[in-house]
Amino acid sequence: MSTPAPFAPCGVITLITDLGHKGPYVASMKGVMLGRFPDARIVDLTHDTLVHWPAEAGFWLRRSYRYFPPGTVHVAIVDPGVGTSRDIILVQADRHYFLAPDNGLLGGLVEAAGTTCVVHRYDRHRAHNLGLPEPSATFHGRDIFAPLAADVARGKLKPSAIGPQIRDVVPAWVDEPTKSARDVRGVVITSDHFGNLITNIDGHLLDGLNEPVAEVSGHRIPVVRTYADATPGEYLALVNSFGVVEIARAEESAADGLGVQRGAPVRIVAG
Amino acid sequence: MSTPAPFAPCGVITLITDLGHKGPYVASMKGVMLGRFPDARIVDLTHDTLVHWPAEAGFWLRRSYRYFPPGTVHVAIVDPGVGTSRDIILVQADRHYFLAPDNGLLGGLVEAAGTTCVVHRYDRHRAHNLGLPEPSATFHGRDIFAPLAADVARGKLKPSAIGPQIRDVVPAWVDEPTKSARDVRGVVITSDHFGNLITNIDGHLLDGLNEPVAEVSGHRIPVVRTYADATPGEYLALVNSFGVVEIARAEESAADGLGVQRGAPVRIVAG
Amino acid sequence: MSTPAPFAPCGVITLITDLGHKGPYVASMKGVMLGRFPDARIVDLTHDTLVHWPAEAGFWLRRSYRYFPPGTVHVAIVDPGVGTSRDIILVQADRHYFLAPDNGLLGGLVEAAGTTCVVHRYDRHRAHNLGLPEPSATFHGRDIFAPLAADVARGKLKPSAIGPQIRDVVPAWVDEPTKSARDVRGVVITSDHFGNLITNIDGHLLDGLNEPVAEVSGHRIPVVRTYADATPGEYLALVNSFGVVEIARAEESAADGLGVQRGAPVRIVAG
Repeated sequence: MSTPAPFAPCGVITLITDLGHKGPYVASMKGVMLGRFPDARIVDLTHDTLVHWPAEAGFWLRRSYRYFPPGTVHVAIVDPGVGTSRDIILVQADRHYFLAPDNGLLGGLVEAAGTTCVVHRYDRHRAHNLGLPEPSATFHGRDIFAPLAADVARGKLKPSAIGPQIRDVVPAWVDEPTKSARDVRGVVITSDHFGNLITNIDGHLLDGLNEPVAEVSGHRIPVVRTYADATPGEYLALVNSFGVVEIARAEESAADGLGVQRGAPVRIVAG
Repeated sequence: MSTPAPFAPCGVITLITDLGHKGPYVASMKGVMLGRFPDARIVDLTHDTLVHWPAEAGFWLRRSYRYFPPGTVHVAIVDPGVGTSRDIILVQADRHYFLAPDNGLLGGLVEAAGTTCVVHRYDRHRAHNLGLPEPSATFHGRDIFAPLAADVARGKLKPSAIGPQIRDVVPAWVDEPTKSARDVRGVVITSDHFGNLITNIDGHLLDGLNEPVAEVSGHRIPVVRTYADATPGEYLALVNSFGVVEIARAEESAADGLGVQRGAPVRIVAG
Repeated sequence: MSTPAPFAPCGVITLITDLGHKGPYVASMKGVMLGRFPDARIVDLTHDTLVHWPAEAGFWLRRSYRYFPPGTVHVAIVDPGVGTSRDIILVQADRHYFLAPDNGLLGGLVEAAGTTCVVHRYDRHRAHNLGLPEPSATFHGRDIFAPLAADVARGKLKPSAIGPQIRDVVPAWVDEPTKSARDVRGVVITSDHFGNLITNIDGHLLDGLNEPVAEVSGHRIPVVRTYADATPGEYLALVNSFGVVEIARAEESAADGLGVQRGAPVRIVAG
């Protein structure tokens, strides 16, 4: 395992959860953070990931963290196992910090980072010494993750102080896409506000495919450059701004039009 | 009435409203605040409380304020009486500040705080001296609450400067739960993003009940410790992270499953 | 064309988009901004404007910018033409800065400001010198607008540095309301969280109309002062807190009750 980058938090914290916008759940995490780190700059990544499914939050985190400054602490709370013995991990990768339940949410990110990432497991026996409150049984986001993230983000708490370094984490919920001589295969992870279907197929996997076409739900959809390359109502595929293949319908919702949801298989072939 | 804590705002302001996320309503409150107090740190508590029903906002505020630093100013805007003669009050309790219409929203909080809280009523004749604009008839959140909150939060405006101290406020919309030798009775206040039903029954009221069971809508539901203590699809009750009884359904929505809404009676008995 | 106000950004940035709350789209814009301008204070105006229809975002921006401090940079992303040759413009008006695609979004604001505003067109050939990344084909909000806005907001980038000054912009999508001796005519632009219908009719246009009445969808609805001037269930019209005529239904949704949507004609006559 290689040497991690020097510990250099920048004071920015992002939050990605499945908590939605009702009630003071996310806000109380922010309150705890501001109590410990008054100058924290907290950004909501999104709170509308699919509930109880860590894969979507993990996907978006892995695809978006690099748009934040190095030293950002990213907190991900999709935590159906809260109150059980599931672990909490802090991952250092690519000069960013990621704090999440060890339930597969960070599995893909850790796997992709390989030996360049360092993982620490939170040791709950250190809670008192770390100044953490007695946690509730159902909201560790506020009672454990928020204070840890705040203390890491303000530079007070080094990753090694939260617990021992570990090697293995719970693997990702969704297999990585595969590439063969004939095609690239992946799945739909989620849809966005416009009804565009977001897959886990990295655009680089299309290299070498001539005039690529996406096959999904019985449709053959050409891969183009941008939305305006199709006429209104027409389906199109493109490598989107987060670097993955996306299925869209010009000025309409591909999710509604195709009746396709997360997990749906997508295949890219030469046209 | 006892002596209030020293005036010590911390620069944090929270907002809880029924204004939702469409249009620039909440944002224009923040703009006004930043104009008067550039260093304000503003947190959205939630804007999805039930419209025109101050009870939900009051409930969440009372249950969540303590996760923010002492000296936080909490602004609550559920204000169907805007533009009428309803009053505006600033409450000091437990080293926090609460600014809301006097329409029952803060009734429960003031009653619970008892003689330890201090209430001032905004005197609209002081508007000019306080540097407030001529208010619109329909959005005092932006025109009165936002500038007052900003000035209190930056320490420029002492509560006594906004108007006279008063003793009584409009009472809460929902009765406090009751406890008898045989049971504890309360109601559902709201549901969260997962469809969990949130009641107003404080967990401490269950002390002394052996193996407590929640009765709601003809169902008998055991009180357990955390969500994972039930199998998927099973109903469960627990004392949640805000200290009140919650009715949930493992990995599903209790609100949908039970067809129960705010105001529904809930009874807790020994099992 | 008159002399613009001195360049004096205040460090506040607002965002108005049609990107919704799913995925890290808006958040990644904020990440880019914080990377270039760590002290930026970023406020979400709203992300729930009608998708692909710049008119609503332009309407709200024009009606709400003045509640922010002078020197605020307002970024508007409703950008169906992303990745095509559509231009990007930076408008200085009334001591505020507005950055948007040149697709009509700012047409009404520029027209209203007349000779008091100054418009610069972003020259994409300056991207490298401005330190901008190679943009994606589908998300200029993050790759072009966010870095430009951050650099303008922190005072590093004068408007003239982004490209040449221009005179004409793409006109607004919706005609301005008209006033005759007999009536005032406009349209519904959007609805709010309560189902109130927001028109583009400025309240000043009602000056001189005796006991004005709004005609919409076959209904005649009196113009009153505030919501509480009608009994529950009754329709009412009023000049709202953003200075335009609004059609409401006391404690209910006028949008649902009238079955009326954006674009619906509204006529105000003497009663």
